[in-house]
Amino acid sequence: MDEQKKMVEEITSMEEDFAKWYTDIVKKADLADYSSVKGCMVIRPYGYAIWENIQRLLDARFKATGHENVYMPMFIPESLLQKEKDHVKGFAPEVAWVTHGGSEPLQERLCVRPTSETLFCEHYAATVHSHRDLPKLYNQWCSVVRWEKTTRPFLRTREFLWQEGHTAHATAQEAVEETERMLGVYADFCEQDLCMPVVKGKKTESDKFAGAVSTYAVEAMMHDGKALQAGTSHYFGDGFAKAFNIQYTDKNNKLTYVHQTSWGVSTRLIGAVIMSHGDNNGLVLPPAIAPIQIAILPIAQHKPGVLEKARELKERLGKSFRVKLDDSDNSPGWKFAEYEMKGVPLRLEIGPKDIEKDQCVLVRRDTREKTFAPLSELEAAAEKLLAELGASIYKAAKENMSKRTYACQTMDEITAALDKNGDGFVKAMWCGSEECEDTVKERTGVGSRCMPLGQESAGGACVCCGKAAAHLVYWGKAY
Amino acid sequence: MDEQKKMVEEITSMEEDFAKWYTDIVKKADLADYSSVKGCMVIRPYGYAIWENIQRLLDARFKATGHENVYMPMFIPESLLQKEKDHVKGFAPEVAWVTHGGSEPLQERLCVRPTSETLFCEHYAATVHSHRDLPKLYNQWCSVVRWEKTTRPFLRTREFLWQEGHTAHATAQEAVEETERMLGVYADFCEQDLCMPVVKGKKTESDKFAGAVSTYAVEAMMHDGKALQAGTSHYFGDGFAKAFNIQYTDKNNKLTYVHQTSWGVSTRLIGAVIMSHGDNNGLVLPPAIAPIQIAILPIAQHKPGVLEKARELKERLGKSFRVKLDDSDNSPGWKFAEYEMKGVPLRLEIGPKDIEKDQCVLVRRDTREKTFAPLSELEAAAEKLLAELGASIYKAAKENMSKRTYACQTMDEITAALDKNGDGFVKAMWCGSEECEDTVKERTGVGSRCMPLGQESAGGACVCCGKAAAHLVYWGKAY
Repeated sequence: MDEQKKMVEEITSMEEDFAKWYTDIVKKADLADYSSVKGCMVIRPYGYAIWENIQRLLDARFKATGHENVYMPMFIPESLLQKEKDHVKGFAPEVAWVTHGGSEPLQERLCVRPTSETLFCEHYAATVHSHRDLPKLYNQWCSVVRWEKTTRPFLRTREFLWQEGHTAHATAQEAVEETERMLGVYADFCEQDLCMPVVKGKKTESDKFAGAVSTYAVEAMMHDGKALQAGTSHYFGDGFAKAFNIQYTDKNNKLTYVHQTSWGVSTRLIGAVIMSHGDNNGLVLPPAIAPIQIAILPIAQHKPGVLEKARELKERLGKSFRVKLDDSDNSPGWKFAEYEMKGVPLRLEIGPKDIEKDQCVLVRRDTREKTFAPLSELEAAAEKLLAELGASIYKAAKENMSKRTYACQTMDEITAALDKNGDGFVKAMWCGSEECEDTVKERTGVGSRCMPLGQESAGGACVCCGKAAAHLVYWGKAY
Repeated sequence: MDEQKKMVEEITSMEEDFAKWYTDIVKKADLADYSSVKGCMVIRPYGYAIWENIQRLLDARFKATGHENVYMPMFIPESLLQKEKDHVKGFAPEVAWVTHGGSEPLQERLCVRPTSETLFCEHYAATVHSHRDLPKLYNQWCSVVRWEKTTRPFLRTREFLWQEGHTAHATAQEAVEETERMLGVYADFCEQDLCMPVVKGKKTESDKFAGAVSTYAVEAMMHDGKALQAGTSHYFGDGFAKAFNIQYTDKNNKLTYVHQTSWGVSTRLIGAVIMSHGDNNGLVLPPAIAPIQIAILPIAQHKPGVLEKARELKERLGKSFRVKLDDSDNSPGWKFAEYEMKGVPLRLEIGPKDIEKDQCVLVRRDTREKTFAPLSELEAAAEKLLAELGASIYKAAKENMSKRTYACQTMDEITAALDKNGDGFVKAMWCGSEECEDTVKERTGVGSRCMPLGQESAGGACVCCGKAAAHLVYWGKAY
C-alpha cells in the first residue's frame, strides 16, 4: 500500500490548487508532455487514444448528417487570408508565418492555417456552379496553429488538433438550419458521450468569430465554476461568398451567392473532460471515450489458475469492451492507484477465492463501489455498471452546474453571489450595448458567455444600466 | 450515349501521354484539385475517402503488431533538427521555415516537420529510463512538408499526408526485426489490399534515408514501366540515440543506448494505385479501398417499381458492402461512364425486365464482363466478383512487372533491353561502388532501386566495371 499512497500523494488536490491539480493529471495520467517546441504539446498514447475515440464518435455523427471529409493545404498565402476583411483582422495577429522554403525566401509569405475558411471558400468558388452542386457539406480533421502567449495543455496551445466543418448552401435558411444542426450534434455528443452537460447559446456581437454573422457555442462548466467553450458553430450569411465570389445559377438561371457555415471542436474537449469529471485520485473517463473501459487486475497472480482465468476473462470481455489485463509484477496497490489515475471506468479483480465462487469483483472508478458479479453474468453486469457510471458523472456535473448558476438582477447581486458561492454562471439580463457588457466584466469579473437558446427570459431591466433588456445572458469566467 | 462518349474523350489515353492520362484521372475522378497554395493539393471527398480506407486498414495492421498512435508538434526548432548531422544535411535544404509568430520575429526559427525523428528522439530521451520502458512502438498520422521544386498530385507535393512509425528497442537485433516486420506489413498491405505486387529490397548507401544505417523499401511497377517507392523502413542503429542521449538501464543496471527504427507510407500510395490499375476509362480501384464498392444504377427508373427495388437492394447490400445508389436524372450512359471513371469495382443494373426475372446485372469494372445474378444470391455473387476482380488486377500488375523485368549482364544489354521493351526493372549485378552506380545511371538512365531480399544472386561480374559483384540490384526510372 505504500506505493499507492505515494502515487496518490503526487497529485495536488483540486481544493488546494486547481490549476496544479489539472496539470498534474495531464502529466501523471500520461496524457501529454512538453517538448522543446514552446507552447505545443506531445500527445502521448493514452491521451491520443482518447482523441481517437472522440474522433470516431464525432466522425460517425458528421457522416450520419451527410458530411464528407476532405483535406486542404496547411498553408494560406497572405493575399488569400486578406480577402475577407473581418476575418484577416481577427486572425492575422496570431498566425505563424512561413517566409522561406529551403534556403530561398518566398515571394509571398504563407501563414500556417489558424482555421481554413479562406481555403474552403477558394475551393467552393472553383467547384460550385449550379444549384445541383449544393449543398457542399465538408469537414476536415487536421491541426491548426494560433500563436498564443500563454498556453496550457489541451486548453490553449499554439498547435492543436481539431475538426472544422465548412458548408455552402443555396439559401440563408438552409445555412441557418445547418448552423443549428451542428450545434445540436455537439451538444448531444457532449451530453451523451462525454457525460458533460452544456448550455447552448448565441454569442454576443463582441464575441463572434471573425467574419461571422452569428456564432453559437456550447458552454460547459468545470469543477471550479469556470466556463469552458466546448464547441462553436458559425453562420456566415453570404459575406465570405461575396468576398470570394462563390455563386451558383439557381433553378431560374439566376446567379446567386451561397450562404455558408463553419463549426469546430478541438482537443480542448480532453481538457473539458478532465475538469468535468476528474477527482483527487486522477482522471475519471466517460465510458464512451475511455481507451480502457475495464482494467483486469489478477489478485495473488502467482497462485495456480489465477492468470489463466484472468486471460480467459480478457479474451471474453474483449469481444464487447475495450479491456486491458495488467499481469505485470507491480503490486495490486500500485495497480489500483495507476488505473484510478488513468480514469479507467471499471476495475475487475479476480483472485483464488473469487475463482472458487465463480465470481469476480467489479469496482466503479467514480464511487469506488464494489460489486460481486457471477462470471456467468459478467458482460451484463459490466454493461450495467458502465451505464450507471456514465449517468452518475453526468448527474454530478449537472448538479455542479445548477448549484453554481446564480440568477442576479443587479451588479451588487452578482458580486455577492460570486463572493459567497465562488465562480459560476451568472444569469442576468442585458440591454445589448457593448458598453454595458464591458462594464459588467470590469466591475464583476465575469464576461458574457452566451445568450442561451430556448430559455425564456422574463424580460426586465439590464443588470448594468437598468434600461429595458431583451437578452438573457450567461456570464462567467472562461478557460 | 453522347454524354458517355464525351466524358470518355475527356481523358487522354495513356498510350498517347501517360503523364497527362494520370493528371486527367486525378482531376476527372474528383480525387484532388489545385489551389492558390503552390505545390500543395486539395484532397477532395472521393480522394480522401480512399485515404481513409488506407488509414483504417494500415492502422489495424499497426495496432495488431503492438503499435500505439501519438501526436508530436508540427514544428521543429532549428537547433533540434541540427542534433543528428546526417539527418539535418539531408533535410535542411528542403524545409519550410517559420520565422514570425503574429507580428513578432521568433528568437529561433522553426521548420515545419519534414519527418519527425528529432521530436520522437527528444521524447524518448525524456521518457525512456529502464529496460521496462522498452520497446517504444509509436506511430503518428499527420502531414509533413518538403519544399519540392517540381510537384505532381499524390506523387510529389510540398505537403503530403502520411504515417511515420518511430520505435526504440533494447537491442540492435530487436530493432532490425522491427525494420523487417514493418517492411513486411507494407508489402502485405500493398499486395493484399492494394492488389499491387512489390519487390522488397534494401537501398544502396547513396540512396539511404538521412541518418539511417540501412533503408529498406517496397518498390512497385507502374503501367509505364517506371518504379514507384511505395513505402520505406529504416534501421538507425544507435546513431540517433547517441546524438539525443537516449539511454536506459539494462537488467544488469548498465546504461545502454537504445536502437531505433522509423517507417512510413504516404498519400503517394493513391498515385501508385492509379498508375497500377487505371485504364483509359479512368480509375480502377481495389475493392478493399474503394469508397464505393458497388454502384447501383436503376434502368428506366421512371417505370413503376424500379426505384423501390433499387432502394431495397441498396439497403440490403449496404449491410455487407459500401454501396451507392445513383437515382439522379442523369442518363444511364452518363452514369456508366461516371462510375467507370471513379473506378467503382462493381456496377449493378436493375430494370423492369430484371425485376420480372428476380435478377440483376453485375458488371465488373476491369473486364466490363456482365453477370446475371439471381437476387436471392446477390451477396454471394457480389462477394465472388469483387474477389475475382482483386485477383485479376493483381495478376495483371504482376504480369506487367514480369514482362518488364530484364535480366542484363552488360551495359549494352541494359540499353538494348530498354530500347526494345521500354522502361522497366533491370536486374543486374553490382560491385558495390558508388562510381559504378553513378555510371550505370548516367549511361543507361536507370538508377538503383533496391537490392531485393530473398532473391538468390548467381554471383558474377558487375554490370559496369566487370569486377566481382556481390549484389543483385533492381535498377529503374523512378517516380
